[in-house]
Amino acid sequence: MSNPIRIGMIGLGTVGSGVAKLLKANAQQYALRTGTTLELVGVLVRDTEKAMMTGLVDQAILTNDPDAFFAQEMDVVLEVAGGVEVAGNFVRRAIEKKCHVVTANKALLAAQGPELYTLAKQNQVSIAFEASCGGGIPIITALSFGLMSNRIDALYGILNGTCNYILTEMVQKGKTYADALAEAKELGYAEADETLDVSGADAAQKLVVLSSLAFDVKVTEDQIALKGIDTLDLSDVNFGSEMGYEIKLLAMAQQTDAGLSLRTMPCFINKETQLAQVDSSFNALSVYGSATGHTFYYGRGAGELPTASAVVSDLLNIVSGWYPKAFEQMNIWPVTHPDVQLADPAELIGRFYLRVDVQDVPGVMAKLTSALGNAGISINAVMQHETEDEQTAPVVILTHEAKQGDVQTALAEIAALPDTVGTPVILPVVDFPAG
Amino acid sequence: MSNPIRIGMIGLGTVGSGVAKLLKANAQQYALRTGTTLELVGVLVRDTEKAMMTGLVDQAILTNDPDAFFAQEMDVVLEVAGGVEVAGNFVRRAIEKKCHVVTANKALLAAQGPELYTLAKQNQVSIAFEASCGGGIPIITALSFGLMSNRIDALYGILNGTCNYILTEMVQKGKTYADALAEAKELGYAEADETLDVSGADAAQKLVVLSSLAFDVKVTEDQIALKGIDTLDLSDVNFGSEMGYEIKLLAMAQQTDAGLSLRTMPCFINKETQLAQVDSSFNALSVYGSATGHTFYYGRGAGELPTASAVVSDLLNIVSGWYPKAFEQMNIWPVTHPDVQLADPAELIGRFYLRVDVQDVPGVMAKLTSALGNAGISINAVMQHETEDEQTAPVVILTHEAKQGDVQTALAEIAALPDTVGTPVILPVVDFPAG
Repeated sequence: MSNPIRIGMIGLGTVGSGVAKLLKANAQQYALRTGTTLELVGVLVRDTEKAMMTGLVDQAILTNDPDAFFAQEMDVVLEVAGGVEVAGNFVRRAIEKKCHVVTANKALLAAQGPELYTLAKQNQVSIAFEASCGGGIPIITALSFGLMSNRIDALYGILNGTCNYILTEMVQKGKTYADALAEAKELGYAEADETLDVSGADAAQKLVVLSSLAFDVKVTEDQIALKGIDTLDLSDVNFGSEMGYEIKLLAMAQQTDAGLSLRTMPCFINKETQLAQVDSSFNALSVYGSATGHTFYYGRGAGELPTASAVVSDLLNIVSGWYPKAFEQMNIWPVTHPDVQLADPAELIGRFYLRVDVQDVPGVMAKLTSALGNAGISINAVMQHETEDEQTAPVVILTHEAKQGDVQTALAEIAALPDTVGTPVILPVVDFPAG
Repeated sequence: MSNPIRIGMIGLGTVGSGVAKLLKANAQQYALRTGTTLELVGVLVRDTEKAMMTGLVDQAILTNDPDAFFAQEMDVVLEVAGGVEVAGNFVRRAIEKKCHVVTANKALLAAQGPELYTLAKQNQVSIAFEASCGGGIPIITALSFGLMSNRIDALYGILNGTCNYILTEMVQKGKTYADALAEAKELGYAEADETLDVSGADAAQKLVVLSSLAFDVKVTEDQIALKGIDTLDLSDVNFGSEMGYEIKLLAMAQQTDAGLSLRTMPCFINKETQLAQVDSSFNALSVYGSATGHTFYYGRGAGELPTASAVVSDLLNIVSGWYPKAFEQMNIWPVTHPDVQLADPAELIGRFYLRVDVQDVPGVMAKLTSALGNAGISINAVMQHETEDEQTAPVVILTHEAKQGDVQTALAEIAALPDTVGTPVILPVVDFPAG
C-alpha cells in the first residue's frame, strides 16, 4: 500500500461520523501503531449538504457521485452506509479496484457474504467485518483468531441493542411493548422503521456471520428459525419474571446430535445468568468452546464510537499488513465449506413456557394437562392467576425437557379446544451448558 | 515453514498435557484451518519416566536433554514449563534457532519481555503469549488487535484463579483464609507453594503484560503496588459484605491526571458489578476504551484445556502466517516505547475501607473521626459491632473520596493512638467508570 494510506468511506451517518472523529482525534497514536499515516481521501454520501453540516470532513473530499468516488486512488474502502443491493455494488467496485474493504454491514454479509469473500480472494484483497456484530465488542477477532483451537459447541448472543433496550424497559419498568418501542424511537435507539430490529432479522443476520465463522459451514439467513419481540405480551414478561426468568432476544447456535440448531427468538433465561444481566442497549455473547469451556463477551453493541472503534480497528489491522494475510486463510465462507447440516426443529430438546388463555370453566385445566400428557410432556410448574376479566384466565405452564415437535403437537391440540381463547403462546426456556 | 510444521514443546505438565491432547484430538480440524499438518517432533521434560506415564506422547520424541531437544529441526517451540531463568534460556535458544515461540509464562515475560521481544525481532521470528493472561479468554488478542483503535483508559482484572477461589469460599461460605487455602490445595487449584498466587505476584506479572500492551509503555513488576490476600481477615470480608461489597483481588491499571496507576490488591467492589459476580476459579477483565467504552471478558483462567486452548490458538495463528506479520508491528515492549509515567500513589483518589481495633473506652470514636477530619477526609459510613471480646472492638469506617496519601496520614495518626490495638487495616473501595 502507498504511504500515506488512502482511505475512502461510503456513508457519513452515525458510524461514519464516529470513524471521522476517531481518525482525527487519534491520528498520532495510529501513526505510531501502524508506522504509516492515514488519510481520508474521499467520502461518498447521498446528500453532500447534510454531510457538510456535520463539520467532520472537508468539502473537497465529499461527493455524491459514485463514479467520481471510485475514480480516485484508494487503498482501503470503509462501507458504513448499510443496505444490501447498493452497498453490495459499491463493495464489489471497491474490491475490483483492489481496495481492501471494511464493512459494518451484517445485512450485506448475510445476503452476499460467500460471493463477496470469493471476489475479494480473487482480487487479493481482504474484507474485515468486526463492526458487523456486537458493535465495540471484538467478538469477530475472538472467534476468528483467539478461539481458533476450539470446536465451538454453542453460542448465545444478545446482538440487537434496540430489542434489548425495549425488553429491559418491559421487564424493569413494566412498560408495554408499544410504549417501550415509542421511547426507544424517541431516544434514537430504534430507527423510524423498526422492523429490521424488532422482527429479529438484524440479530439473525449477525448470527449468520457468527455461526459461519464458528462452525466452518455455509449458513444463510433463511435457515435461522426467527421470532421477533413485536408480538410479545407484557403478561408473558411478567409471568416469566415471577418464575425467576428474564426474557431476552437471543441469537443461538447449538451443535446437537441432530445437527446445528440456529434460532433467533425471545427466550426465558434464568435471572442469575450473565446474559440475563445484560441490560439496555448493551450486547453480549456467550461462547462455549470445546477447550475453553464458557467464555463471555460484553460491551456496547451500537452507537457512534463503539461501532466506529471496530471499523477503525479493522482498518488499522489491514494497514498493519497482518489482516490481509489472515484473511487468506480465514475460515469463513470458503467455497470448500460444506452446507450446514441443520437440526430438525421438531427434534430440538428443551424446556418451554406456554400460556393458554382459557374460558374460566370447570375441567379446563384437566383438558390442558391431559393434552400435554398425551404428547408425553411432563409439567414442571403451572400458574393461574386471578384476572380482572372474569370470562377468560391465562394458564401458564412450564414444561420439563421435551422435544419441541411434541410440544407443538400438544399445543395444536390445546389451540383446538373449545375453551381456548386466541392463540396459545410458546417461548423457549433456555438452559445454558455447564461450561 | 516446512510442511508438516515441526513443533517442539518444553514441559508436559498441566498445560503441556492439554496441548498434546488438543493436537491429537483436533488434528483434522487444524489441518483444514491452516492448510498444513502439525507434528509434535520433540518434548523436553525434566523427568522422562513421569512424562511416559501420561501416555500422551511417544517415547521416541521425549527427552530430558536440552541439547538433544534443540539439535532437532523445529519451526515452533511451545514453552509451557514455567519458571524464569531456565525457561528464559530455552526461549532464547529457540529464538536463535529461528523458531517462533509460544509461551504461557507471565513470570518470564514480566521479567524479560523487552529483551526477548527484541531478540525475536532481530531473528525475524515471533513470540505469542495469549496463554500468559486469563487462560482461555482471548484477552491478548482483544487488546492487541480488536481494540487497536482505542486509547485504553483503565483495566480491572481478576487474573488469578487460586485467589479468586479462596476469596469466593471466604465470602460465600464464611471460611477463614487458612481453611480456604487448604481446600484450594486439596482440589489442585493452589500449588504446594502458594506464595506466587496469594501474594498477588502472579496477577501482577499478568498486569505487566496487559498494561504494556494497553498503554504503549514499558512496565516492570516492581512498578506495581502489591498486596496479597494472605493477610486478609475474615472479619473484613464480612464487614464489606454487610455494606454491599464483595472482596476481589484486582489487577488494576488506570490512566489518571497524575500518570498511570498500577495496583494489584484485594479491593471492595459493589456486589452488583460484573466483576463481583466472577466466582471460584474463573477470570475476567473489564476494559474501558476511549471509543468502545466498557467491554468485559470472562472465562476459565487456568486449567489444562482452557490454557492449552490459548497455546494452540497461538500456534495455529503462527502457522497460518499472519501472527508473525502482526508481531512485527505489535505495540508491546518495542525499544521506542517510553518508560511508564507512574502516578504517585499518594495522589490517587478513591474511597477506602478502614478497620481499627480499639480499646472499648469512652471517647475513642471521637479520636478516630477527628484524626480523619484533621486530614480532610469525610466519612461515608461507620460501623461498630458488639464483640465477644469485651476488651477491644473493631470500628469499620468507609470514607468518601479522598487522596490515598491523606488517608495514610490519618491512619498513621490513628495507629499511634493509645487506644488502638494492632495495625489498622486499609483496603481500597473501587468504583468503576460509568463506561
